[in-house]
Amino acid sequence: MTAMPESLPTGVAVRHAARSGTLSGHTVGAAPRYVQGNVVIVPREHAYDFLLYCQRNPKPCPLLAVSDAGEPRLPTLGADLDIRTDVPRYRVWRHGQLESEPTDITALWRDDLVSFVLGCSFSFEQALLAAGVPLRHITCGDNVAMYRTGIATTPAGPFSGPLVVTMRPFSPPDAIRAVQITSRFPSVHGAPVHLGDPKAIGIDALERPDYGDRIEVRAGEVPVFWACGVTPQAALAAARLPLAITHAPGCMLVTDLLNERLAVF
Amino acid sequence: MTAMPESLPTGVAVRHAARSGTLSGHTVGAAPRYVQGNVVIVPREHAYDFLLYCQRNPKPCPLLAVSDAGEPRLPTLGADLDIRTDVPRYRVWRHGQLESEPTDITALWRDDLVSFVLGCSFSFEQALLAAGVPLRHITCGDNVAMYRTGIATTPAGPFSGPLVVTMRPFSPPDAIRAVQITSRFPSVHGAPVHLGDPKAIGIDALERPDYGDRIEVRAGEVPVFWACGVTPQAALAAARLPLAITHAPGCMLVTDLLNERLAVF
Repeated sequence: MTAMPESLPTGVAVRHAARSGTLSGHTVGAAPRYVQGNVVIVPREHAYDFLLYCQRNPKPCPLLAVSDAGEPRLPTLGADLDIRTDVPRYRVWRHGQLESEPTDITALWRDDLVSFVLGCSFSFEQALLAAGVPLRHITCGDNVAMYRTGIATTPAGPFSGPLVVTMRPFSPPDAIRAVQITSRFPSVHGAPVHLGDPKAIGIDALERPDYGDRIEVRAGEVPVFWACGVTPQAALAAARLPLAITHAPGCMLVTDLLNERLAVF
Repeated sequence: MTAMPESLPTGVAVRHAARSGTLSGHTVGAAPRYVQGNVVIVPREHAYDFLLYCQRNPKPCPLLAVSDAGEPRLPTLGADLDIRTDVPRYRVWRHGQLESEPTDITALWRDDLVSFVLGCSFSFEQALLAAGVPLRHITCGDNVAMYRTGIATTPAGPFSGPLVVTMRPFSPPDAIRAVQITSRFPSVHGAPVHLGDPKAIGIDALERPDYGDRIEVRAGEVPVFWACGVTPQAALAAARLPLAITHAPGCMLVTDLLNERLAVF
């Protein structure tokens, strides 16, 4: 194993940049050794159903931490982490409508808000790259391709909707290696949910992703599909809660956890 | 892989025996291919904190399913499963005191009760035995040795307390194999939490387990410790809820899930 250069940014450095306002954009490639998380903040009144939705759909909704109500700190993810300031950019939703995209939610904080942090595929992508498995969307500088599938998630209270997946194309040997590597990381979506024929999971056309960028699938390659953190975001939007706060796309919470610590073996 | 004889009982057969009253005792070795679960039933008022406790302590509290409030069915664990009748023997707790041990809780059922089913080590023990790793407590016909450790679980609401662990002694090569095999099964406690010196996790004397039977550790063997489902049972008792219902020790809910389906790789 090669030692990472000491000069790579740490999770806490990225959080402090977000907190100070220096960083208000995406976190792709920021602090590559550290776990980044999707953020969902809802009032306590809706927290049980959202927690249940995550429990029932662990592949798209792998929970890294849940705060106490009103508590902005998540010490298991970072000693000084403050969820009100440490995400570079937030989205504030009222009744399912996007209201604003602030870089700080201190003024919106309430003592009944519960924060959920969910694992994201950046962690397993780092593991794939470290193992020499190429990722075309990264090579091309694109966002990963995402699709709404015909697979329904298991509902909980007001939360339901289709499973959303990411797609990455691989040579067959790399597809097999990708299954092995991502199986080690169940807390960041884990093993793929499907490979091969997109129609088998209700995706009509790979060239028309529902979110992100179109990614070329070359002759002889296998498209491989993973459960995606957009699934709970879409379920949250569809539930039209009076108030919900999320991270803005790509503007993740960067934690102090090392990606490699999430490996179950 | 050797095919299991068709004559082994299925999960549904064991549940029906419990439902009819034919089976009112322990389920050790019943339907060995099938996942057995710890059962915790609490009013909706306390369900969020218990769910949060499980999320924060996934090694001792690996959730297999959570019902809707008032819903006695858990279809992801068994098509016809009815939590009111399908456990061989229950324990009814009022304010932390054991009130009764009925074989059916239909008369106690309320429309605010939420059922939690948590994985148990029977599943990974089957995988160890199938791999030729001997388990002394089974060879000796004893219950596994269990200990309260000095490690605190992460609290949630009224639920807190020490991590309780099981101990199994192995030769060093079998200890290594046991780490590999149980790592495949995070939903039934997963990899060990400790091996070697019991004092390092606050266990003073292996010869005095807090629950279960004393298991001999022979010269040259390594004691290996796994998080145990008694942890949430103890946290539940200590919380002294007005009402809680659990399975009676060893009298588990047998599901339709095959143990091997829980393997993450």
